[in-house]
Amino acid sequence: MTLAELARLIKADLIGHPDAQVMRARPFEMAEQGDVTLALDPVYLARIRESQATAIIVSASLTEYSGNLLVARDAKLAFARAIAALHQSVHKPIGVSSDLMVGQGTVLGKDLSIYPRVTIGRDVVIGDRVTLHPGVVIGDRCQIGDDSTMHSNVSVYDDCEIGRRVVIHAGAVIGAEGFGFVPDEQGHQVKLLQLGRVRIEDDCEIGANSAIDRGGFGDTVLRRGVKLDNLVQVGHNCEIGEDTVVAALAGFSGGTKVGRGCVVAGQVGTNQHTRIGDGATLTGRTAVTKNVKAGAVMAGMPAQDYNAWRRSQVIYSNLPKMADRLKRLERIVEELIKDFRKDSQ
Amino acid sequence: MTLAELARLIKADLIGHPDAQVMRARPFEMAEQGDVTLALDPVYLARIRESQATAIIVSASLTEYSGNLLVARDAKLAFARAIAALHQSVHKPIGVSSDLMVGQGTVLGKDLSIYPRVTIGRDVVIGDRVTLHPGVVIGDRCQIGDDSTMHSNVSVYDDCEIGRRVVIHAGAVIGAEGFGFVPDEQGHQVKLLQLGRVRIEDDCEIGANSAIDRGGFGDTVLRRGVKLDNLVQVGHNCEIGEDTVVAALAGFSGGTKVGRGCVVAGQVGTNQHTRIGDGATLTGRTAVTKNVKAGAVMAGMPAQDYNAWRRSQVIYSNLPKMADRLKRLERIVEELIKDFRKDSQ
Amino acid sequence: MTLAELARLIKADLIGHPDAQVMRARPFEMAEQGDVTLALDPVYLARIRESQATAIIVSASLTEYSGNLLVARDAKLAFARAIAALHQSVHKPIGVSSDLMVGQGTVLGKDLSIYPRVTIGRDVVIGDRVTLHPGVVIGDRCQIGDDSTMHSNVSVYDDCEIGRRVVIHAGAVIGAEGFGFVPDEQGHQVKLLQLGRVRIEDDCEIGANSAIDRGGFGDTVLRRGVKLDNLVQVGHNCEIGEDTVVAALAGFSGGTKVGRGCVVAGQVGTNQHTRIGDGATLTGRTAVTKNVKAGAVMAGMPAQDYNAWRRSQVIYSNLPKMADRLKRLERIVEELIKDFRKDSQ
Repeated sequence: MTLAELARLIKADLIGHPDAQVMRARPFEMAEQGDVTLALDPVYLARIRESQATAIIVSASLTEYSGNLLVARDAKLAFARAIAALHQSVHKPIGVSSDLMVGQGTVLGKDLSIYPRVTIGRDVVIGDRVTLHPGVVIGDRCQIGDDSTMHSNVSVYDDCEIGRRVVIHAGAVIGAEGFGFVPDEQGHQVKLLQLGRVRIEDDCEIGANSAIDRGGFGDTVLRRGVKLDNLVQVGHNCEIGEDTVVAALAGFSGGTKVGRGCVVAGQVGTNQHTRIGDGATLTGRTAVTKNVKAGAVMAGMPAQDYNAWRRSQVIYSNLPKMADRLKRLERIVEELIKDFRKDSQ
Repeated sequence: MTLAELARLIKADLIGHPDAQVMRARPFEMAEQGDVTLALDPVYLARIRESQATAIIVSASLTEYSGNLLVARDAKLAFARAIAALHQSVHKPIGVSSDLMVGQGTVLGKDLSIYPRVTIGRDVVIGDRVTLHPGVVIGDRCQIGDDSTMHSNVSVYDDCEIGRRVVIHAGAVIGAEGFGFVPDEQGHQVKLLQLGRVRIEDDCEIGANSAIDRGGFGDTVLRRGVKLDNLVQVGHNCEIGEDTVVAALAGFSGGTKVGRGCVVAGQVGTNQHTRIGDGATLTGRTAVTKNVKAGAVMAGMPAQDYNAWRRSQVIYSNLPKMADRLKRLERIVEELIKDFRKDSQ
Repeated sequence: MTLAELARLIKADLIGHPDAQVMRARPFEMAEQGDVTLALDPVYLARIRESQATAIIVSASLTEYSGNLLVARDAKLAFARAIAALHQSVHKPIGVSSDLMVGQGTVLGKDLSIYPRVTIGRDVVIGDRVTLHPGVVIGDRCQIGDDSTMHSNVSVYDDCEIGRRVVIHAGAVIGAEGFGFVPDEQGHQVKLLQLGRVRIEDDCEIGANSAIDRGGFGDTVLRRGVKLDNLVQVGHNCEIGEDTVVAALAGFSGGTKVGRGCVVAGQVGTNQHTRIGDGATLTGRTAVTKNVKAGAVMAGMPAQDYNAWRRSQVIYSNLPKMADRLKRLERIVEELIKDFRKDSQ
C-alpha cells in the first residue's frame, strides 16, 4: 500500500513520499523498513531518528525530521486504522461443513463459514457472511446478523437476537436464565422464570467466557458498539449503552442501566437497578451502589468521586500516623488541663 | 387457567371472580387483560386502578379496589408461583440423538432429551427425563439424577454425582481438579493430586461458566437447593449448605464451609477453610478471612459486621475533612500552650 | 509399594520397616492400614498414636513413637510426592477417535488419546502422548507439546504454542483477541487488531474457564511451570514468570509482567503495564496500580505493603471511635480556650 493510500484511509496528512510502500503496521520498538509505526510517547518521539520504519504516525509535524510522517490529530486512532488497513483479513467463505446439524425452518444466508461440529436449532435466521467456529451451539428462533462471527464453543440459548458485525469470543454464553429466586415458606428457593430475551445490536464484541443473561420479562440489551472483555457478567434486564467498553471480570447485577460511551474498568460491580449516566468512567473495581451521574469519574466501594476517593486513600494509608497524632494530642490536652487547673487554683 | 385454580396453586386468597381466565403473568407496567400481575411497590399500589390486568397479586386486601385481587402474605413468592404455573414448560422428551457417543456400561433412563453432539463416558447412570444440550460432555462413572438439565457445552469430569432436578447452565465445568501445589526444593510447583469428587444434590442450579472443583480427598458438596449464579468459583472440598444462593463472580477458596440459607452477593471471596454459619448474609464483595457467625450480616475486607462497616465507610469518605480537623486542632493546642506558658510566666 | 521405595521417591528418611507395604496416601483423619499419611499440624502430631496408618510423614523424628515414620524436612512436599507416587495414573493411550476432524498439513504424534468430537485446524503439530477430551477445538498452525492434556470444550485460537506436560482444564480459552479499542471522532470504538500469539511453556496448568488473550504485537507468555486456577483472566501481552501460582478470579490487564515464583491470590487485579518482581506475594484482592518490588508482600487497593495495610485496616475498623475521640477533643479544647480566656482577663 502506498503512503498516499494509507494517509487517506487513516485520515492523516502525509509529509513525505506519497509512493513509498508500506506492508505492515508495527509498534515503535519492532518497526523496520516497509512498516508504518506510531511515535506518540515522548520517549519514542525523542528516538524518532533511530527508527527504520518507512513512515511514522505522529500527532504534530516535526520540523527536525526528514523521514515520512503521517500527521493525525488522534495519532493512536490513526495507528489503529493503519493496523486494520494493512492486516485486516478479508472474509473468505469456507462454506458450510457437511456435518452441520440444523433444525427445521432455519434459513441460512450466503457466503457462510460454518466449521465442523456446529449445531443450530429450529426457525433460526443466519445472515450472510456469518462465521461459526467449531462447537458453536445456537438455540431455536435466534437471529444472527450479517458478517457476525462466533468463536469456538459459544453457546446461544433460544430466542436471542444478535446484530451485524458482532464478534462473540470462545466460550461465551448468551441468554442463560437470569438469577432470580424467592424463598418459600420452608426457605426453599423458588425460581422466578426468565421469559425475556437477549438482544445484541450491531458492532458489539463479547469477550471469551463472558455470560449475558436473558431478561426476566423484557430483554437484556447491548446497544450498538458495546465492547465487553473476557469473563464479564451481564445480569438479566441490564442495558448497556452504545460504544461503552467493559473490562474483564466486571459484573452488572440485574436491571443495571449503563449509558453510552462509558468506560467500565476491570472487576467493577453494580447493585441491582442502578443507573450509570452517559460518558461515566468507573475505575477498576468500583462498586456502584447508587446511580452515577453522566460524565462522572468514580472509584471505591461504595462508589464515590474519583478525586475524593484518591484523597481518602492517601489519608487511609497514613491512618496509623493519624491515630498516633490523635493519641498524642489527647495526652497533651490532658496535661494542659491539669496544668491549667493547678495554675488557676 | 381460572383465578380459582391459580389462587389454589399460588396459595393466595381470591377476592373477585373465580371463573375469570388468566393466560400470562406479567410485571405491572406490561400487564394487559388476560394477565395476572403483582403490585407490591407502593408506586404500583397507588396506580392499581390504571392496570388492565385481569388479576393483581397484593399482600393485603384493598377495600377501595373493585377488580380481582389475589392476596398472599408473601406476594412476591405468590407471583413467582404464578409465573411458574402459567409459563413453566412441561418436559416433552425429544429422544436420544442418533449421534450420541456413549461409553460401555452406561445406563440411560427413559423419556430423555439428548440433543446432537453429546458425549457420555463409561459406566454412567443417566436418570429419567434428563435433558442434555449440544456439546455436553460427561465423564466416566458419573450419575445424573432424574429431571436434570445440562445446557450447551457443559463439561463434567469423571466420577461426579449430580442429583435430581438439577439445572446446569451452559459452559459450566463440574469436577475440574482443585488448585493445590507445593513448591519443591527448586521452587517448582508439585501438584497435590485431587482424588475426591463433586456431589451436587437435588434441586441445585449452577450458572453459566461457573466452575466447581472436585475434592482433594473427600468431596466438594453442594447441598439440596443451592443456587449459583454465573462465573462462580467453588474450590476443592467446599461445602455449600441447603438453599444458599450465591451471586455472580463470587469465589470460595478450598475447604470453605457455607451454612444453609445463606445469601452470598456478587464478587464475594473467602479464605481457605473458613466457615460461614447458617443464614448469614455476605453483602457484595465481602472478603471472608475468619469464620462468620450464623445469621450475621457482613461487609468489607476483611469482613466485619455490616453496620459497623457502614459507619466506617461514612467516616472514610470524610477522611480528608477529619485530617484537616486534626491538623487544625493541633495548631490550636500548640497556640494555647504558648499562650498558657506566656501567661503563667 | 514398599516403604523403602516410597522413602526414596519422596526423598524422606525412613524410620521403621523398609518392607512394609502402602497402597494409598490419605489425610490424617481418613488414613487406615495400608495408607501413608501426613502429621504436620500439632493437632495431628499429638494424636499420632491413634492413627492406623502404615506410615506417617513428619518433619522431625519422634522418639516416643514406635510406628513407621518418613521424616522429610518439607513434610507437605513429601506428602504431595507420596500422593503422586501412589495415585498418579499412567497415560494409557486410547488412540484417535475415528470422528476426528483435522485440517490439511497437521501432524499427529504417537500414543495419543483423542476422544470423540475433537476438531483440529490446519498445519498443527500435536506431540506424543497428548490427550484431547471431547469438544476440544484447536485452531490453525498451533503446536501442542508432548504429554499435554486438554480437558473438555477447551478452545485454542490459531497460532498458539503450548509446551510439554501442560494441562488445560475444561472450558478454558487460549488466544482470544486482546481488549484494545480506540474511540474515533464519533465515539465509536475502533479495534486495535491483535496480531500476536499465546505461548505457554512446559509444565503449566490452566484452570477451568480461564482466558488467556493473544498479544497485540508480540506474544502473551506463560513461562515454565505457571499454575493458574479457574476463571483467571490474562490480558494481551502479559508475561507470567516461572513457577508463579495464580488463584481464581484474578485478572491481569494488558502488558502486566509478573516475575517468577510469585504467589497471586484470588480476585487480585493489576493495572496495565505494571511489573511485579520475582517472589512477590499479592494477597487476596490486591489491586496493583504501580510496580511491585521483588519479594514484597502486598495487600489492599491501591496495593501497599501488607503489614502497613493491616495496621490501617485495624484503625479503619475503629474509625467511628476515632471520629468520636476527635470530636470530644475538639470540645474539650474549645472549653479550655474559653476557661483560659476568662481566666486571663
